[in-house]
Amino acid sequence: MLDSIQKHLLEEVADLHSVPEGAYNIRSNGQLESRNTTANIDIITKTDKSGIDIKIKDNTKNESVHIPVVLSKSGLKETVYNDFYIGENCDVTIVAGCGISNCGVQDAEHDGVHRFFVGKNSKIRYIEKHYGEGDGTGNRILNPRTEVYQEEGSYVDMEMIQIKGVDSTNRTTIAKLKKDAKMVVHEGIMTHGGQKAESSYEVELNGEGSSADVVSRSVARDDSTQIFSASLIGNTKCNGHAECDAIIMDKAHVVAIPRLDANDVDAALIHEAAIGKIAGEQLIKLMTLGLTESEAEEQIINGFLH
Amino acid sequence: MLDSIQKHLLEEVADLHSVPEGAYNIRSNGQLESRNTTANIDIITKTDKSGIDIKIKDNTKNESVHIPVVLSKSGLKETVYNDFYIGENCDVTIVAGCGISNCGVQDAEHDGVHRFFVGKNSKIRYIEKHYGEGDGTGNRILNPRTEVYQEEGSYVDMEMIQIKGVDSTNRTTIAKLKKDAKMVVHEGIMTHGGQKAESSYEVELNGEGSSADVVSRSVARDDSTQIFSASLIGNTKCNGHAECDAIIMDKAHVVAIPRLDANDVDAALIHEAAIGKIAGEQLIKLMTLGLTESEAEEQIINGFLH
Repeated sequence: MLDSIQKHLLEEVADLHSVPEGAYNIRSNGQLESRNTTANIDIITKTDKSGIDIKIKDNTKNESVHIPVVLSKSGLKETVYNDFYIGENCDVTIVAGCGISNCGVQDAEHDGVHRFFVGKNSKIRYIEKHYGEGDGTGNRILNPRTEVYQEEGSYVDMEMIQIKGVDSTNRTTIAKLKKDAKMVVHEGIMTHGGQKAESSYEVELNGEGSSADVVSRSVARDDSTQIFSASLIGNTKCNGHAECDAIIMDKAHVVAIPRLDANDVDAALIHEAAIGKIAGEQLIKLMTLGLTESEAEEQIINGFLH
Repeated sequence: MLDSIQKHLLEEVADLHSVPEGAYNIRSNGQLESRNTTANIDIITKTDKSGIDIKIKDNTKNESVHIPVVLSKSGLKETVYNDFYIGENCDVTIVAGCGISNCGVQDAEHDGVHRFFVGKNSKIRYIEKHYGEGDGTGNRILNPRTEVYQEEGSYVDMEMIQIKGVDSTNRTTIAKLKKDAKMVVHEGIMTHGGQKAESSYEVELNGEGSSADVVSRSVARDDSTQIFSASLIGNTKCNGHAECDAIIMDKAHVVAIPRLDANDVDAALIHEAAIGKIAGEQLIKLMTLGLTESEAEEQIINGFLH
């Protein structure tokens, strides 16, 4: 049974108030808490290392898989390998996420390696939220690695959000797209205190007609540091767009390093980046509507990240 | 006396048909060809290494300095150091440039290191053109390094053009700007055949109110390769904008790696990049006006680079 801290973490990372419908695998403090499979979605514990295989049959539509992870023990460090094998012509939603509550003095760390093998013409919506809390001096560390392999005509929509409270994160996402495959990524990261976040994307557009749209939005407060790099590689007739926008506050430090690599005359690649503070006019407008300055800031940040 | 090849190179790199007005220093095949100084602009040959010091007095206005270099000997390799000491409250135009005609089998290489010390409230317009020609199998190599140190309130406008015919180039530009200093850079590079061009900018906005606008436009044809990187570092209240747009043709390869580094809450940094081929509609429009396809391409490329 989950305690109240764990239940709160689950709410934050997976919007779960009770047991989810459909397939799920809830991992708590390094152990399986509960699991459900369906006729179309199987979840199998790996035997060679920590983690699970999620197997989704061809033509599975309108189903979901939840695989949240919660950590509430100081000093726990784990690396978990989750592989998603998605058949052809599917349309499924996958909700992952990790919440850490660290009230102790030792670091708590979860490193998740997620691989997605997306079958022909399948459509995936993937939501990943990271959240940390707790008064301890131990750090909350999350290092996710995400690999996406898209077959012809597949569509992947990823929403990757780091809400707050993660002291150190090193996020790596790579993707390889075949013919007519499409990827849409929306990343939102907030750092505060002395936190450090590093995020890198490398998307290879290998198949004719493939396309990628990677949008990263971040807010860096206090003394936090963020480094964002996004590489779009166009090896054929393809379309790529990357955008990284950051709001900088207080004494924060933000670095954005996009990279466009066009290897084909029919590769069309675009990048935009902007770093700046919250516009004064926006703050004043909200304050004239009755918000305090910090409420107005909060509202602007939330609108920007979501 | 310059021969007709050298005169043609001079025209290409410095738009010079005769001896320029004002101060000049013409270098040909590793040697001083001719020099003129004025009451306000002195040119002194360095004694410790190859190159010249250009000293411009305070309050010098509406004067120009031409320092073109031409190479028409195969096998000649030279490194030249030119330092510009520009006083306060000046308004001067500096025209540099290097033309190489290599009809031989050995490489011809000119590496120029230019340093600009720009005094308070001075305004500089700097034009640099690079051009190569010749049927020889020897490569035409140009590796310019440009350093710009801007005092308070100074303004530097740089136009750096590599017209054609340069087989290999590695261009490095660094700049450090003090309070209210402003820098505007326009770079245009065309590569063809098996040429390689690498260009990197690093602009540090160190003084309050400083600003930089770096625009690079390039055209890569045939099997040529271009790598462009631009780094804007905002260490205070400042504005930075960088843009790199490239037209890719044939089997060319273009990489753009901008970098925004915001170290201050009042640093506003923006970047845009786009790589793509010439739009079909643009070609068709010009062809309906009577141009052949290659004439239409030429016209679009010229409009894009200048």
